[in-house]
Amino acid sequence: MHLANDPAAPATPEWVLTLSCPDRPGIVHAVSGVIAGLGGNITESQQFGSPVTGRFYMRVQVALPGTPDDGADALRDALARVVAEFDLTWDLDRVGRAVPTVIMVSKEAHCLNDLLFRQRAGDLPLDVVAVVGNHPDLAGLATFYGVPFHHVPVTRDTKPEAEAELLRIVESTGAELVVLARYMQILSDELCVRLAGHVINIHHSFLPSFKGARPYHQAFERGVKLIGATSHYVTGDLDEGPIIEQEVERVDHTRNPAELVALGQDVERRTLARAVRWHAEHRVLLDGLRTVVFR
Amino acid sequence: MHLANDPAAPATPEWVLTLSCPDRPGIVHAVSGVIAGLGGNITESQQFGSPVTGRFYMRVQVALPGTPDDGADALRDALARVVAEFDLTWDLDRVGRAVPTVIMVSKEAHCLNDLLFRQRAGDLPLDVVAVVGNHPDLAGLATFYGVPFHHVPVTRDTKPEAEAELLRIVESTGAELVVLARYMQILSDELCVRLAGHVINIHHSFLPSFKGARPYHQAFERGVKLIGATSHYVTGDLDEGPIIEQEVERVDHTRNPAELVALGQDVERRTLARAVRWHAEHRVLLDGLRTVVFR
Amino acid sequence: MHLANDPAAPATPEWVLTLSCPDRPGIVHAVSGVIAGLGGNITESQQFGSPVTGRFYMRVQVALPGTPDDGADALRDALARVVAEFDLTWDLDRVGRAVPTVIMVSKEAHCLNDLLFRQRAGDLPLDVVAVVGNHPDLAGLATFYGVPFHHVPVTRDTKPEAEAELLRIVESTGAELVVLARYMQILSDELCVRLAGHVINIHHSFLPSFKGARPYHQAFERGVKLIGATSHYVTGDLDEGPIIEQEVERVDHTRNPAELVALGQDVERRTLARAVRWHAEHRVLLDGLRTVVFR
Amino acid sequence: MHLANDPAAPATPEWVLTLSCPDRPGIVHAVSGVIAGLGGNITESQQFGSPVTGRFYMRVQVALPGTPDDGADALRDALARVVAEFDLTWDLDRVGRAVPTVIMVSKEAHCLNDLLFRQRAGDLPLDVVAVVGNHPDLAGLATFYGVPFHHVPVTRDTKPEAEAELLRIVESTGAELVVLARYMQILSDELCVRLAGHVINIHHSFLPSFKGARPYHQAFERGVKLIGATSHYVTGDLDEGPIIEQEVERVDHTRNPAELVALGQDVERRTLARAVRWHAEHRVLLDGLRTVVFR
Repeated sequence: MHLANDPAAPATPEWVLTLSCPDRPGIVHAVSGVIAGLGGNITESQQFGSPVTGRFYMRVQVALPGTPDDGADALRDALARVVAEFDLTWDLDRVGRAVPTVIMVSKEAHCLNDLLFRQRAGDLPLDVVAVVGNHPDLAGLATFYGVPFHHVPVTRDTKPEAEAELLRIVESTGAELVVLARYMQILSDELCVRLAGHVINIHHSFLPSFKGARPYHQAFERGVKLIGATSHYVTGDLDEGPIIEQEVERVDHTRNPAELVALGQDVERRTLARAVRWHAEHRVLLDGLRTVVFR
Repeated sequence: MHLANDPAAPATPEWVLTLSCPDRPGIVHAVSGVIAGLGGNITESQQFGSPVTGRFYMRVQVALPGTPDDGADALRDALARVVAEFDLTWDLDRVGRAVPTVIMVSKEAHCLNDLLFRQRAGDLPLDVVAVVGNHPDLAGLATFYGVPFHHVPVTRDTKPEAEAELLRIVESTGAELVVLARYMQILSDELCVRLAGHVINIHHSFLPSFKGARPYHQAFERGVKLIGATSHYVTGDLDEGPIIEQEVERVDHTRNPAELVALGQDVERRTLARAVRWHAEHRVLLDGLRTVVFR
Repeated sequence: MHLANDPAAPATPEWVLTLSCPDRPGIVHAVSGVIAGLGGNITESQQFGSPVTGRFYMRVQVALPGTPDDGADALRDALARVVAEFDLTWDLDRVGRAVPTVIMVSKEAHCLNDLLFRQRAGDLPLDVVAVVGNHPDLAGLATFYGVPFHHVPVTRDTKPEAEAELLRIVESTGAELVVLARYMQILSDELCVRLAGHVINIHHSFLPSFKGARPYHQAFERGVKLIGATSHYVTGDLDEGPIIEQEVERVDHTRNPAELVALGQDVERRTLARAVRWHAEHRVLLDGLRTVVFR
Repeated sequence: MHLANDPAAPATPEWVLTLSCPDRPGIVHAVSGVIAGLGGNITESQQFGSPVTGRFYMRVQVALPGTPDDGADALRDALARVVAEFDLTWDLDRVGRAVPTVIMVSKEAHCLNDLLFRQRAGDLPLDVVAVVGNHPDLAGLATFYGVPFHHVPVTRDTKPEAEAELLRIVESTGAELVVLARYMQILSDELCVRLAGHVINIHHSFLPSFKGARPYHQAFERGVKLIGATSHYVTGDLDEGPIIEQEVERVDHTRNPAELVALGQDVERRTLARAVRWHAEHRVLLDGLRTVVFR
């Protein structure tokens, strides 16, 4: 976690604490006690007890006195006692910190353009450290936004080397998030496991409808009246990862598959941008195969 | 088709002509020529040439001089020539005629209540001639709206007799439409064929997601962020009939399956009411396994 | 507040506590301490600090051990200390309690029908104790649902007497909520003040667009592409009360004012039902002229 | 109208004919007769008779045999007879022709970025011939997309010169459309009249709510639950021009004005892109102060 000052940070430093633990009475009181003990002020707080997994999830934003680093250290120390008592799994980050991110693309530009534009506009807390394409088509767009572009072609034979190169880029840039912005390649099981919870994909259908290839053509064949997009965490189980966000758009009988593709691009980029934002703001927590999204 | 005057009819009698034929130049000119020749005025007109089936579809509303019956007879006669030339399949009805309809239900009231209320409010061109329930629960609701209720229980053993009774009710009432308003029973292939194109179902999911039983529970398990409903024509292929209308509603991680059911009921009744209205207004035409909906 | 057992109540009795106070650190810790001290378990909790008014708002659902009455009494007593320290304004109710409600109507049935149907379906925690109409048209609908109907005509001259009669009905039935379900009469300033925060109206436009009379005709004249409805608390300032919920529906140039009215009815009833549910579930808190809605 | 071949044109040349005239029987037959007489095939057709103005509107796409220029000339000649008989006002263009367009901006990039990206992606039939900014901030973005950028500052004193310069740019580039993509300057009445029907604006509210300055702040003050955007033709009557498209997005009490601005940008660009596309495809016709949109 890098703590350098960045312009998106609020004037008073704020911290976002996310945690989960087995659900039982007293958690909120214990956590709010830690915060109150440090003179912190809760500026946003959400909780959820999952009836399916029996776990409790919490996201809390805190304004803390002191310098940024001091505040975080004090909070970490004070949490230690509660962690043991409630068996907490937790994470702490500065609100507004730009998450180092690698975006992977193929030939289609709409999602990449949207993410880069929003990032530059200060509308997404990302620091896009690299764009990786299995085709060179989008190098110019990345360059316009000042982001290094890596052309890493993939064939059946070169997939292991390509994934090794991808991992090298992720690790050398310190990336904490990989966004598949219409990458169109399936990651190996090993890579999925290695980056679990840190890779977000956009699938161009309203899952679980129309898994697999050419979903707009499938949607056309079935004659649906709404098309959609789904952003989800990537797991080894293709198109089955935990869903973060979904969105739909109305269509009618006059639309051919090519028009569905064009209409769908708008839905895809909105859906992906929302999922990426919520992830970067630590609003998405995993509850088994489902997500808790504290919007 | 009954031509008696009813209060929903516009002051000047209007007719709705729907037709389809192999697509080729000159159809619109020929049909509009027939209408112009009778001094008719087109008040609404929509066309669609399907690239998949190569067929042309048209729906046209016409204000015709003369008494209602005369006008329709003249139009029928004048169309004869065009029918032969273009190999037309066609249908003619009076705008606003209340379509004799049987509604089939089980125990859940929300769709039935919605359809009966809209009908009484003059908001749906239906004449609900009977409500058939495999349970007696909704008899009171039907009675309140002055509609005869038939309790026709169905078990595995009595299904043939029950369907025979249903058919008898449909035929004796002159019903032209059967609406499965959360009927929860699967019709036999024979009945599906016999009533093909005249039975509309509401499925409580966004098809093709979550076919079959307990779709809201399936949706909960998968963690989707939108739930939906689908209204479609019933065919022997369960949940695969041509889709007329779909709608969705946003949900989040806090909703349990029971709450999804409750939220979904609102979506179901809106979706079904729209599909039924469009069918009754002759706005839905079949184009292979897909529908053309002239909204 | 009546505490009699009703079927909508959860198996383990739960309580909903809503509160507001000047915003400062430590509130959540103090309130959660009271709950933890009683062995209560928080099942749902939401907070909001308003930057405009500087006030803090909280809604918390708690499962408490002991019999229903004992639990509530203990919670009330334990809160006393916190109330003084933080200057709390608070309210306590049993989760699922049916709120005694008077619905006021004129001639249009769609909102009344919707509320009564949802209530009977167990989908709205209301106990509709009376329907009051300035016209007699909807007496039959009220009767079907077993609710007493009072015909209280209003003319310019009889308005004071009519409002006195309304107040008498509200007080004699113990109603805690008055819903104007397309009542079409303006309440006097005196009545608005007297029932402040307890009267919910549905306005048939997307406020602040098209205040006043015949909003669908105004919307038609302006050529808008979406029509809407707004549910709000009633204040002496007509159509300016705090907004609880709004919804819209797409329309196009083919819709005449009568069709906008029909389409709008669907939006109105959904919007009103949501606002009434949220109010009855203590999810709506007033923050100056705006509402905090803990959905 | 330029008829040079461009890549967006379909393989078989198609023409789009839009027309309006006083409504009376026989128009469709006459127009379709002209088309049939040339051996043309109607690929898309929509009609509307306005009950308010008594005028009839039609948009028809036609595939015509022959070279592009020959086809259009033949259609023009053949229409002459019908024009006189029905008092037609009409326009003819090639389907897919890129409309020469000037985009005017101030400092905010989201609408410009969206339009330029969509144009390059082949998703908008525009030929953006110039970007004009009263501030220089967006020059880099225009340059990236290969579009000349003109910095034309405007002060109260220099407004006439600035508008003269704008007109010069419009005329020298042959622009047929001017898009105010968050231009933030009010055009003079003279310019509005001169370019009437050819200037599209995006207003950042759901008109007629929140006319004038800082609409998101107005929306925040009023506590609305949906924010919106409106794209309309520019007239001398500020924010009162004919509406082409509107869209909304749900918000809640947690959103401050700055967040409403950010959320609204997404709505603005979608709304503007749709309005511009429909205009460029000749789908928008003026019916008094309202628009007919043949989507």
